[in-house]
Amino acid sequence: MDLGNGLEGTQDTLDAEIQSFFDSAPPLKSSINVSEKLEEFIKRNSEASGKFTLRNGCDRKIVCVTSGGTTVPLERRCVRYIDNFSSGHRGAASTEYFVKAGYAVIFLYRRGTFQPFCRSLPDDPLLECFEFSDESKNIQVHHSHSEAVKRAITEHHAAVGEGLLLKLCFTTIFEYLQMLQMIALSMRSLGPRAMFYLAAAVSDFYVPWKSMAEHKIQSASGPLDMQLNQVPKMLLVLGKDWAPTAFCISFKLETDTKILLEKADAALKKYKMHMVVANELSSRKEEVIVITSNNERISVRRNRTLGVEDVEGPLIQLLVERHSSYVQNF
Amino acid sequence: MDLGNGLEGTQDTLDAEIQSFFDSAPPLKSSINVSEKLEEFIKRNSEASGKFTLRNGCDRKIVCVTSGGTTVPLERRCVRYIDNFSSGHRGAASTEYFVKAGYAVIFLYRRGTFQPFCRSLPDDPLLECFEFSDESKNIQVHHSHSEAVKRAITEHHAAVGEGLLLKLCFTTIFEYLQMLQMIALSMRSLGPRAMFYLAAAVSDFYVPWKSMAEHKIQSASGPLDMQLNQVPKMLLVLGKDWAPTAFCISFKLETDTKILLEKADAALKKYKMHMVVANELSSRKEEVIVITSNNERISVRRNRTLGVEDVEGPLIQLLVERHSSYVQNF
Repeated sequence: MDLGNGLEGTQDTLDAEIQSFFDSAPPLKSSINVSEKLEEFIKRNSEASGKFTLRNGCDRKIVCVTSGGTTVPLERRCVRYIDNFSSGHRGAASTEYFVKAGYAVIFLYRRGTFQPFCRSLPDDPLLECFEFSDESKNIQVHHSHSEAVKRAITEHHAAVGEGLLLKLCFTTIFEYLQMLQMIALSMRSLGPRAMFYLAAAVSDFYVPWKSMAEHKIQSASGPLDMQLNQVPKMLLVLGKDWAPTAFCISFKLETDTKILLEKADAALKKYKMHMVVANELSSRKEEVIVITSNNERISVRRNRTLGVEDVEGPLIQLLVERHSSYVQNF
Repeated sequence: MDLGNGLEGTQDTLDAEIQSFFDSAPPLKSSINVSEKLEEFIKRNSEASGKFTLRNGCDRKIVCVTSGGTTVPLERRCVRYIDNFSSGHRGAASTEYFVKAGYAVIFLYRRGTFQPFCRSLPDDPLLECFEFSDESKNIQVHHSHSEAVKRAITEHHAAVGEGLLLKLCFTTIFEYLQMLQMIALSMRSLGPRAMFYLAAAVSDFYVPWKSMAEHKIQSASGPLDMQLNQVPKMLLVLGKDWAPTAFCISFKLETDTKILLEKADAALKKYKMHMVVANELSSRKEEVIVITSNNERISVRRNRTLGVEDVEGPLIQLLVERHSSYVQNF
């Protein structure tokens, strides 16, 4: 879940590494289409903030939520790849809460992961929620799923229809970073009203496109040895060059609680994030620790007794408050 | 797409490798549940073959279709894994044609891949095919998708309802091979009426569970070096020990046409398959070459002029004919 790594180096080295990463990446498909959608979305929501006072009394803010894991192809004609586990549940849930809080959301998600407003549906909603009725000769929703299906379709379509949700999808680490850069550059005009909520599980290692095997790696010759390069520290460039005025939140996921807070702290300082959300794999749906640039450590917990179902509810509430202060004090 | 590899060794070495693979695998979740479903499905379809003469005049045959790619976890608390690319389109399409040909199908598929009868739907059918109608206060199918949705739901539910389709899903290479073994042992009682159609993209390499890192691999210390073991040649054991009387078809996928037929030929001989389907990544939806144990090389092509939409149509027709001869001559 981090975009950067521990390799220390000068700014020049980093710039060269990043240049080399993008130079070696395959060109992004439909980049013109993505760029047009982005421009229109940001323009519409910027104008909205001029004309209307939003429900929280502020100008419209826009957040880019990244969600799901990136893949690293091991061969150019991709048969095998390394993948990062992430269902995208956190990104999808957070998007819902951001929309409710009056934000416009650019949802940059891994193809096939959880979608906002659809989290309570079964794995394969079409086959599990619908049936053909011989009586009415129509497709009908099973009674047991009707509320969840109705909510998913109405709320999702409303958010997209009202221009509050733009969905863009990626698969590889190359697509993810190319699109994140496009989004960040497009959101610069928003100044401090832009937020980055980087919940995607991003590969730390990659095989440069140019040195990648053209064909499928053959398995005849014993064990496979692979050497993977580190992905350059894009978080540094995001905060410094791509989106210098945005409010930035990154995530740190570890399976070992002993090193989690230490690593989250290091990431906050190194990448100059405004907040880092530290989460441990097994307890991440119950509790996260938010580390702030004021050296706070705030525990955010799911609270069933108050009817708050997800840890993302109180988490987004906290971030929205802190983002408001950030905009006011900018 | 092959289960086996090039490592030569004695039978004892192979047995030891396989033992070690299964010993080192994490235990299969819900294995009792899977085993009960399998037993019931096979029993029902064996009885059906006793009572009824099927439309092709033969006893009911059962095919196990494997579909989609397997993953190889790199860490025990799995954050990263290696994945094999496969949409599962071939397995899903083939399952439809097998059901139409009167087979009962055990569909062993990777979670999230294409499902039988649902291939012509968009990526996210719930959000793309349905809308909420303010008028009727009901969820409705968009007119443009209504035929595809109706077909998907009625034909899928009919196949499951009539007991002709049993779906079992896997994610990791461990789950895949454990379940394949269970299925093969359960199908032994069917003698030559059992078929294995091994279209899944199975990892050639794996990290033994016991030597796997407990926690997330840290990225602070430069490039990542990984050494992966070869997956033992399970195809040999499938044909020899697990299902010695079954009719077995495996697949060979390559991106390099030069080595494809040579490798398919080698696989046929080495694993004593009855047929190997050779497919090249870029042309695999238009043409495949079937290599038989009689040294035939049969080109099977998609034929749009005859209204045959998929290459799987004529492919399954060929396999069904050959399987019938195999049963008659057994």
